[in-house]
Amino acid sequence: MPTEEFVVTPYEVRGAIDYDRLRERFGTQPIADADLATLRELAGGTLSPLLTRGVYCSQRDLARLLADHRAGRRFFLYSGRGPSGPIHTAHLIHFHLCRWLQERLGVPMYIQITDDEKFWLRPGTDREETARFGRENLLDLLAVGFDPKRTRVFFDSRSIGTMYPLATEVAKRITYSTVKAVFGFKPETNIGLVFYTALQTVPAFYPSWRTGHPVPCLIPCGIDQDPHFRVTRDLADGLQYPKPALLHGQILPGLSGGAKMSAGGDRADDALYLNDPPAEVDRKIRRAFTGGRATLEEQRRLGATPEVCSVWALWRTQFARDDLEFETVTRDCRSGAMMCGECKEKILGRIHPFLEEHRRRREKARDYAESLILEPLPGGTDAAHAPELPEP
Amino acid sequence: MPTEEFVVTPYEVRGAIDYDRLRERFGTQPIADADLATLRELAGGTLSPLLTRGVYCSQRDLARLLADHRAGRRFFLYSGRGPSGPIHTAHLIHFHLCRWLQERLGVPMYIQITDDEKFWLRPGTDREETARFGRENLLDLLAVGFDPKRTRVFFDSRSIGTMYPLATEVAKRITYSTVKAVFGFKPETNIGLVFYTALQTVPAFYPSWRTGHPVPCLIPCGIDQDPHFRVTRDLADGLQYPKPALLHGQILPGLSGGAKMSAGGDRADDALYLNDPPAEVDRKIRRAFTGGRATLEEQRRLGATPEVCSVWALWRTQFARDDLEFETVTRDCRSGAMMCGECKEKILGRIHPFLEEHRRRREKARDYAESLILEPLPGGTDAAHAPELPEP
Repeated sequence: MPTEEFVVTPYEVRGAIDYDRLRERFGTQPIADADLATLRELAGGTLSPLLTRGVYCSQRDLARLLADHRAGRRFFLYSGRGPSGPIHTAHLIHFHLCRWLQERLGVPMYIQITDDEKFWLRPGTDREETARFGRENLLDLLAVGFDPKRTRVFFDSRSIGTMYPLATEVAKRITYSTVKAVFGFKPETNIGLVFYTALQTVPAFYPSWRTGHPVPCLIPCGIDQDPHFRVTRDLADGLQYPKPALLHGQILPGLSGGAKMSAGGDRADDALYLNDPPAEVDRKIRRAFTGGRATLEEQRRLGATPEVCSVWALWRTQFARDDLEFETVTRDCRSGAMMCGECKEKILGRIHPFLEEHRRRREKARDYAESLILEPLPGGTDAAHAPELPEP
Repeated sequence: MPTEEFVVTPYEVRGAIDYDRLRERFGTQPIADADLATLRELAGGTLSPLLTRGVYCSQRDLARLLADHRAGRRFFLYSGRGPSGPIHTAHLIHFHLCRWLQERLGVPMYIQITDDEKFWLRPGTDREETARFGRENLLDLLAVGFDPKRTRVFFDSRSIGTMYPLATEVAKRITYSTVKAVFGFKPETNIGLVFYTALQTVPAFYPSWRTGHPVPCLIPCGIDQDPHFRVTRDLADGLQYPKPALLHGQILPGLSGGAKMSAGGDRADDALYLNDPPAEVDRKIRRAFTGGRATLEEQRRLGATPEVCSVWALWRTQFARDDLEFETVTRDCRSGAMMCGECKEKILGRIHPFLEEHRRRREKARDYAESLILEPLPGGTDAAHAPELPEP
């Protein structure tokens, strides 16, 4: 087990994460086999590999959400993206799970693009540029394959008129001392960031607020985002809305060995971007940090360690064609039957067509992306420009 | 001179205010005769009685603003209202001065209705009700006689889409420690109120931000609002916008003797509301706190003290027909020639027709009030629904 102390907050991930200890620290629950069985049944007998392979490792209130859904109180999905730059493969994980859930259960999906937060968070950034990243990122998220009829977008800087009434309600119920304790804000934190969590709460309650009766919400997100939604959940009772349920994904490792795949400063090669040119993809994968041994001879004899390998994380989350391929890759890695070089060439054979297909779907999303963004109509009504979703 | 310690902040006014000491405390300047002379000249040879009678007692950067205006860098006006309930006469003072400036100098006017702030500030209030007060208050402000072609409204909950891009820029430059120091926020302050000063800054910079070149701003306001605009002024250099100039009005006393005319709790009779029925107006004025003596005999002999009288404050700010009447009233009060009862009947003869005329103009304002509210058009442009004002 890792012994080094690890840190996980919405604004910092550091060290080797022990997920058992992190669940204890956060007060979340593991995903029970019974919950997976219920979900499999609701989904018509299948489960997303992201669930069967343990990529999602923690939850809040999942059993209640699924029981409600089965009883006819259907849920909706909410996940988001802070547009700090181009999107990399790890960003897509939660959207892959959401798409799978939407496809199988027919539920609505709200995507939030938090361009205001990223502008407030990152010194020296430009508001227009952050919004531009938001528009680009949204195309990538929609390329995952959401049903436009069942998907709407809160694009903070654009949707503020739709979001502000509920954000105003919510903000009155959150004290500075709460956000200071939860996010570790300091006196020099700007007042935009202090306010921001009110906006991240809006999509979770929006359908309940609009319809006037409780609509359950499921939020698949990185476990580092849990503190935001703890604030949201604490508000639910006072507002008489259902507490959103959460499915927490593990933090995916970077290609150069970082704890979290990220665009951070000196780790330019840490992330595989969806817009990386093919030669760049080849270079990053061939250099990627693995669980291999010091010499080929040693590795053939002793095998490698997939659990610490950044390439295995890609097989596990996105690039194995099916469970058989994933199990074969894992077994051959562990046994020493497949060397890291061979494994990398093999996964490149999956990544290149994936990125090509992604770019095709991304271009198609341009046709309808704008029409999914919630914006208010002038005239003081709360009516949105993009039609709101029917209830689930 | 008053010796009791006084308190003046945007959220509390208490004690007998010594304006010389308050200017020192706030670091503001008295209004120089030279500035009044310049303004008189720009206004075609007249001055508002609010300026000649010392109702405005403090300023920041007035000389620079007037020099700029004379040199062709014309200014615009900005003042606002927090809709905590119906409007009383003292609320109109700054709008009277603004209307006079607009009429004489032809300058544009932005009115801000801060319904979000009032909702965040007052426990137990309702968001819809606060917005309703805002709509009602706006009619009262427009009834003062602004030129609709030169007047626009930031109604926070309605105009947030127009305000948010600039508010986002501004919020990034304001730290929690700044607002804590300026407004005395505590850990239990809600995060809406922490964020709010970013929105109060928006109108001051909006024309400069929209046009891309510096447009000077003049803010007539109660001196208790100065701390908000100190934050605004401190941001100006960083954003390369002109620091707004300020004209600070005195805090007008309540009819029952409070330091500030207000709707506060046990002082229900402190304020003369624009929607008070005639009998209520009579009752409040007849009961109003004055500077009279213990007995009529003593008052006839020694005269009264207008400076402490709540009725004299009404003559001085709003109800004297002209300077001659104001001077006569003041002289007859001081000399003992006019008793308080007579003075009160006389001012009632001004107040009733004023309120009748006000209600007539208020009904007319319904025809165009909505069309002055700035709201964004859907489609991600920053274009406003109500046309923005031409530059001054």
